[in-house]
Parts: sequence; structure tokens; C-alpha cells
Amino acid sequence: MQPRKAIALTAAAATVIAVAATANASPGEKHHPGSKDHQVERAVDAALKGKPKNVILLIGDGMGTQEITAARYYQGVNKPLNVDRLPFTGFDTTWSVKPAAAAPYSPDYDPDSASTGTEWATGQKTLDERISQGPSSADNVPGENLVTLLEKAQQRRMKVGNVSTAEITDATPAVLASHMSLRGCQGPANMAACPTETKAAGGPGSIAEQEVDHRVDVLLGGGRARFEQPISGGPDAGKTVVQSAQAKGYQYITDATGLAGVTSSGGPVLGLFNSGNMAVEWSGPAASTGKGNAPTACTEGRRPANEPSLSSMTSKAIKLLENRRGFLLQVEGASIDKQDHATNACGQLGETVAFDQAIGVALDYQRSHPDTLVVVTADHGHTSQIVSEDASGTGLPTGYSTNLLTKDGQVLSLTYGTAGYGGPGQPPVATPPSQQHTGTVVPVWAGGPGSLGVLGTNDHTDLFHTLGG
Amino acid sequence: MQPRKAIALTAAAATVIAVAATANASPGEKHHPGSKDHQVERAVDAALKGKPKNVILLIGDGMGTQEITAARYYQGVNKPLNVDRLPFTGFDTTWSVKPAAAAPYSPDYDPDSASTGTEWATGQKTLDERISQGPSSADNVPGENLVTLLEKAQQRRMKVGNVSTAEITDATPAVLASHMSLRGCQGPANMAACPTETKAAGGPGSIAEQEVDHRVDVLLGGGRARFEQPISGGPDAGKTVVQSAQAKGYQYITDATGLAGVTSSGGPVLGLFNSGNMAVEWSGPAASTGKGNAPTACTEGRRPANEPSLSSMTSKAIKLLENRRGFLLQVEGASIDKQDHATNACGQLGETVAFDQAIGVALDYQRSHPDTLVVVTADHGHTSQIVSEDASGTGLPTGYSTNLLTKDGQVLSLTYGTAGYGGPGQPPVATPPSQQHTGTVVPVWAGGPGSLGVLGTNDHTDLFHTLGG
Repeated sequence: MQPRKAIALTAAAATVIAVAATANASPGEKHHPGSKDHQVERAVDAALKGKPKNVILLIGDGMGTQEITAARYYQGVNKPLNVDRLPFTGFDTTWSVKPAAAAPYSPDYDPDSASTGTEWATGQKTLDERISQGPSSADNVPGENLVTLLEKAQQRRMKVGNVSTAEITDATPAVLASHMSLRGCQGPANMAACPTETKAAGGPGSIAEQEVDHRVDVLLGGGRARFEQPISGGPDAGKTVVQSAQAKGYQYITDATGLAGVTSSGGPVLGLFNSGNMAVEWSGPAASTGKGNAPTACTEGRRPANEPSLSSMTSKAIKLLENRRGFLLQVEGASIDKQDHATNACGQLGETVAFDQAIGVALDYQRSHPDTLVVVTADHGHTSQIVSEDASGTGLPTGYSTNLLTKDGQVLSLTYGTAGYGGPGQPPVATPPSQQHTGTVVPVWAGGPGSLGVLGTNDHTDLFHTLGG
Repeated sequence: MQPRKAIALTAAAATVIAVAATANASPGEKHHPGSKDHQVERAVDAALKGKPKNVILLIGDGMGTQEITAARYYQGVNKPLNVDRLPFTGFDTTWSVKPAAAAPYSPDYDPDSASTGTEWATGQKTLDERISQGPSSADNVPGENLVTLLEKAQQRRMKVGNVSTAEITDATPAVLASHMSLRGCQGPANMAACPTETKAAGGPGSIAEQEVDHRVDVLLGGGRARFEQPISGGPDAGKTVVQSAQAKGYQYITDATGLAGVTSSGGPVLGLFNSGNMAVEWSGPAASTGKGNAPTACTEGRRPANEPSLSSMTSKAIKLLENRRGFLLQVEGASIDKQDHATNACGQLGETVAFDQAIGVALDYQRSHPDTLVVVTADHGHTSQIVSEDASGTGLPTGYSTNLLTKDGQVLSLTYGTAGYGGPGQPPVATPPSQQHTGTVVPVWAGGPGSLGVLGTNDHTDLFHTLGG
């Protein structure tokens, strides 16, 4: 794998400010320029250069070690990923907590994106399904609002942006710019479970309303239907969230052409490119029990042209946010998780590759703007596992498997089996139900000022501090 | 998780030689002594201090991110592990290759411990089941012998040791001190599949014979039955491998009392503490389909007193190996893998905790001997997954699950489902068959001279170079 290493080192070098050979080297030391030791020293020097001006956080939803490895192997074992350009790596625990009348709250080992998002966005543990509120006695009892990274960045007069391939009101983008007891309360018409938090009840309104009211400078993703719902109370009652946003000065766009045309001089940008989640990049064979399908390659290029790619949204978001006071940008590859839930191997891999392309955009920006911190992680582990192509009989997995022909021409077998129990004495159900998250630590990668915090095993609440919270 | 971080930082500091504040800090920089930035700078300085005198490699067999996290959570979410004391972390790919008449050899994404061991022990990719030989046209055609880390260390007149809770002829210890086309050829009577490699055929003999003939200074583990088999040819024909070892000057011991009594002045040490694999530390409920058992705690302290713990073997091995020219020691927590294969959650967790205790022994030695490189990793991923305790109905996993009551008093649900398919329209087989390995990247941790190589995503063949190959 020397080609991969060579490229990774070259790229890592590009992330740092050039410095003279340091005074740390022992006499006779052999870490010549170009060696990994030398590159790490330079990356450490860059990491210690004060606070970052810009922060780009990229969340691969559900992208545990199995998921990133499956994408890596599908693309070719000797082909580096963009994420390999980041010099520092570590692991984060992601456990959430259970309802209780007061602290201490007991750990829940298998969290969701809302609780883990609240961890990195606020530095606090909370209940599953909760959006930047603290824990409480029950799921439907709102907790204390917690200050988010985005709010802190706005206090520092930085620009802020949120990009996702999911509905932009989904949990990961929501945790930065809203506070809600339950993640499902995404639009004004989705508030039945959050009755005290509507605008009509004197609350802050749905996640969509809060994102606009927070005046997030860039909001790009899916979820248009949420924003087309009428607001229930307050000064904008009767308007849709889109109309409310436009009244506040937002530029509203709905396709790739619109995205290409906007500039920061026109005000903040609300781009909603699908009524629900955005379309996925790849398709392929359905998972099935037993041996699974005859090996086939994924079909790429499935995203409609009117929907922008995650990397083009990322590129545009950076252009829109760039300013002398710096920016905070969150980019979510959301459907890695959603396709893992759906046992759709090609969907999952295509979203992971697209997410890695967005990482490449962020790292290209960092190369020319070394005062930028880039952090990549997942919010929780997921189900897919790379298993043997040679298994047979009772040696086959108990769940739903897919066999893919990789770009190296070999068989990559993935299996999904965290849901689908058919009952005592019964086979797994024929149509796979939504698979579970898993509780493993997630990988973290980082480079740039302040990035050393990710080394070792930390908790997602620690990431809040690394990100400037 | 602040307590964990605080302890991790304190310990990381202990791994490095004290140095003055470096010249790298920018004016006005705020990485005060005790901060993580400062600790990382000191760990980098220590890592750059030339080549290590001593190298301790600890392999948690099958210890992927799910396995280490499950052990962490069982022990308590706020309780640090010893492995957290290591300052540098990364990921390694582990793919092996398939038989072919000549290079290039195609990747096999789900490897075994023999091929991955050959990767880190020799820096070369090879076939599954192969012990420090290169790939070839078929499994039963021996490949080229590859020089191992242990052989290189012996050339440098370092002492060398091998410790495992498996048979000491199992794949992980075998790759350091033997060369064999198939991993099963462990004792003189187990050579049917390796007919050209017996001593009678003029070959090097079984793995047990080669380990003794290599004059490995310390061999501690299970596998006594292999060494009680008679040798088939050569000068020691008719002797058992134990008798051959004793004739070569080995001290032979078979229990914890014997281990306590040996010293390096008596010659090399062969300690075989079980006729097969060593006994495991913990026991607990069997895995079952559907919801699984009512949550229970594991039963600890199951290892018989006559068998030493992995940490006591590690401690003794270090004492026996310490010398002015340095040593290479490999320590394997082997039954993490074996209990994962067996869907035995408590067995797996107890072995992981015992492995972490052995890591603590290595790090305590490094604290007083900072010229020691310590690297911890796994050889491949495995099956167990942390899933939701709240799942029900078709939301339950398709495989075999176990519910444990952790030391935080909460329910940890683990599931195993990479083997057990019951056939079309049939439930999973009642008795779970051996679970598969999985192809995920594995975690790597390191500290001390030369440890920066583990940062980022590398391949297990790169680890060979980090370890001094």
C-alpha cells in the first residue's frame, strides 16, 4: 500500500503552514523531509497555531469502521480516500443517556443521531431523539436548551452553514440551529408530539422555523415539504416557512441551477433540493437471506441532475460563507445511515464515496486556507459487516446479504442482521425491516489548528471543545 | 468523561521523556503544561527519539471497535481502559490475498489471523492460513519463506518472546518464529497437510518444532499437547518437542508456580499451561435467538489458579527478556477472537479486559523505560455488535443475542449473526456455528519511540516497518 501512503503524506503536508526544521529533532535523527515523522511534526506545528479561523465539520451519518472500509474496498484496496489526507485520527464513544428526574442519568449504549448530535453540538449528554436540549424525566418533557456551536459562532460574528443530503431539518443539521424535545417535530405541521414548543403555544416553533429564525447563513439540503407548511403562530402566522425566510431576506433556491447562481451578496441562502431526503448516488441489488445475489457492480450516476451533489453543495457553501471573521460549516453525508438502515449496500457505498468527495472539497480549501480546522467523524455505528465471500451452508450469516463486484474485480460480501427476527422457529422476515444502529466507537479524523484533541479515545462531548465550543 | 481524559493525559505524560517547552509554540499560544496539546507535543518528542531499544506488540485477536467498546461499556462508561494511556491512534486495513500463479494477487477482504499476522510480522501480503510464507498458486503449495520481525531482532542480538492465551503454536505467535504453508501444522503429529515441510521430509518441521529450533527466549501460553508429540525426523527424531527443547537448554514449566520460579539465568523458558488453549477469565449466559436472556452480570474469576493470567505472563516475560541489547515481545489476547467465534459474550469481554490489563503491564514498564515502543492492535475485525436493549418483534436481530448487566447497572445487548443460516424458509440453526471474522479496519494504538507511524489509515504490512522491520 505504498502508493496510498505516499499520497496521504503529500496531502497531509499541504494542510500545514511550512515551517523550518524544528528544534526538537535529536542529533543524528533520521526523519528527513518527506518522511512520515517529519510530516507529523509539521502537522503538529500546524495544529498548535492558535485557534482556527474557519471550522468545517463533516459527519458521515452511521459511518462506522465497517462502512468506511466497505467503501474503501469497493473503490480499490490501493486507492486512497480523501479522508486519508487528514493527519490525526482517533475514536469517540457516543453513548446517550436515559430519562430520569435528575442527574445522574444512566448510559444508553446504542444512541441515535439526535443525542449524539447534541453531544458534539453542545458538549452535553442527552436523551435519544432530543435536539440540543438536556435530559429530563421523560421523552416528551422538554429539557433545558443547550448553547450550540453554531450559536457560539454567531456570537463571535462568524458566518454559519449547514449542509445535508437528508432533510435539512433532520437530526444532524437540527442540533446546530434548534432546540426541540423530539426530533420528529421538523415542520410547523409536525408538532403534535411537541405541543408546548409551537409558536402558537409561545414556543420557538418547529425545527424548520428555528433554522430560519436563527438566520443560518447557508442551509442546503432536502426537506422542502417541511418548509412549505404554514406557521401556526407569532408574527409570521399563516405564512409558510419558505415565505417567512424570504421575508427575512433569504434567497430561496430549489435546484442545482439555482445553487450555481446564488452569491453571498444576495443575503442568506435556503436551498431545498428535494421534498424529502435528497436522491442517492448509486443503486444496486437488494439484500437477501442466505448466500445473496450473484456478484454485481453497483450502478453509479443515479442522482438526478437537478439535485446538486454533496461536494458541490459543500463547495458552494464555503464560497458563500467565506469572510474575514471566519465561518462554521457542518456537512452531513446523511444517507450512509439511511441506506444502511435499508440494507441497500450500493446506496450506502455510493453515499460514502460522495461524502468522501465532499471531504476532498473541504481539504482542498484547507490547503489554501491553513487557518481552517477540518474534522470528519460519524455520529454512531451501524449494521453492515464485511464477511467472507466463501461462506456456505450454516456458515452463512443469519441476516440479509449482498454480493458486489468491486473495482478490483473481486467479491465484496456485506451482511445486515441487526433487525429482521421472524419469531420462534421462523425464518427472518422476508422484507428486511429498518436495521439498528450499533454502539461501537466511531472513527474521527482531523487536521489544522486545534486538531490534536481527536487523538486517542474521547467522547463525542469532547469533540464540542475541539470544535471551538 | 472528563475523569477519563484526565487520567489518559496523566498516563500519556508518563510515557515520555521530560523535555523543555519546545520552540514550536507560537507567541501567545495557550497550550499550558497539562493541556492535551502540550501532552501531545511531549509524546511527539518522545516518538522522535530515535529507534526503540525494546518493542512490545500486543495483539487483541479479533478485537475490532465493537469488541473494545463492549468491554469498555461493560466495565463502566466513565472508567478508562489502560489502552487509553497510549497517545497515538489510527486504523489499519487487513485484507489478505488469493492464490495465483504469480503476482498480482487479488485482495481477499475478510482475512484470518495467519495472513494478517504474516502482514505485520513480515511486511508482505499472503494467503489465509499461511504462516510467514508468501502467496503461491494454491493453499497447499508452500510459498517463499519471509523474514520475520523476530528473526530481524535476533540478528540484532535482541532477546525475543512470544506470549499467548491460545496454543503458542496458534497463528499469531506462529508468524514470528515459524514458516508454514498451512496454520494447522502445529505439532509433529499434525503435518498431514504439510507433507514436504516435516523434518522427515527434510523440512523445518512443525510450528512447535520451529519455535524451539528458533530458540525463542520466552514462549508462554497453551498448546502443551502439540509439544508432547514425537518428532518425525532429524537429530531429535523420537524425542517429544518438550524433550528437544530441554535438550537445547530450555527451562520447561507447566503452571503458575513454575512461572513464578524461573529466572533468565536458567536459560530460555518454555511455559505451557494448558494442553490446548488456556482457560478463559469469565463465563456467562449463552446467546440465543430473538430477545435473548434476561440481563445478567458475567461471572468473573473462572480461570484456574494453576494457569497464569495474561498480565502475569506479560510481566514475567518482560523480566526474563530485559537485557542491555533490548527485546521484542509479542503478547496475544487470543480468546477475544475464540469467544467471539463461539457467541460467548462474557468469555469475549473477560478476555478483552484481561488483555487490557496486560497492556497496563506493558505501559507501566514503558513508564520507567521510555526507550520502549508499545503498539496495540487487532489482527482482524469480528462479529459482535452492540445493539439496542429496547428492540422487540421484527426489530430484533436475526442472529444470536446476549443481554448483560454492566457495572453501571445498565443492559448491554450484544448480537452475533455472521453465521447460523438455517436454509430457505428455516430459522437460524439452534446451536450457533462458529461466527465469521469481518473485514473492517482495526484500531491501532501506540506510544514511545517510532510510534507516529500508526497515525491515519495504514495497512497491517506498514505496521511491520513501524515495529522495526
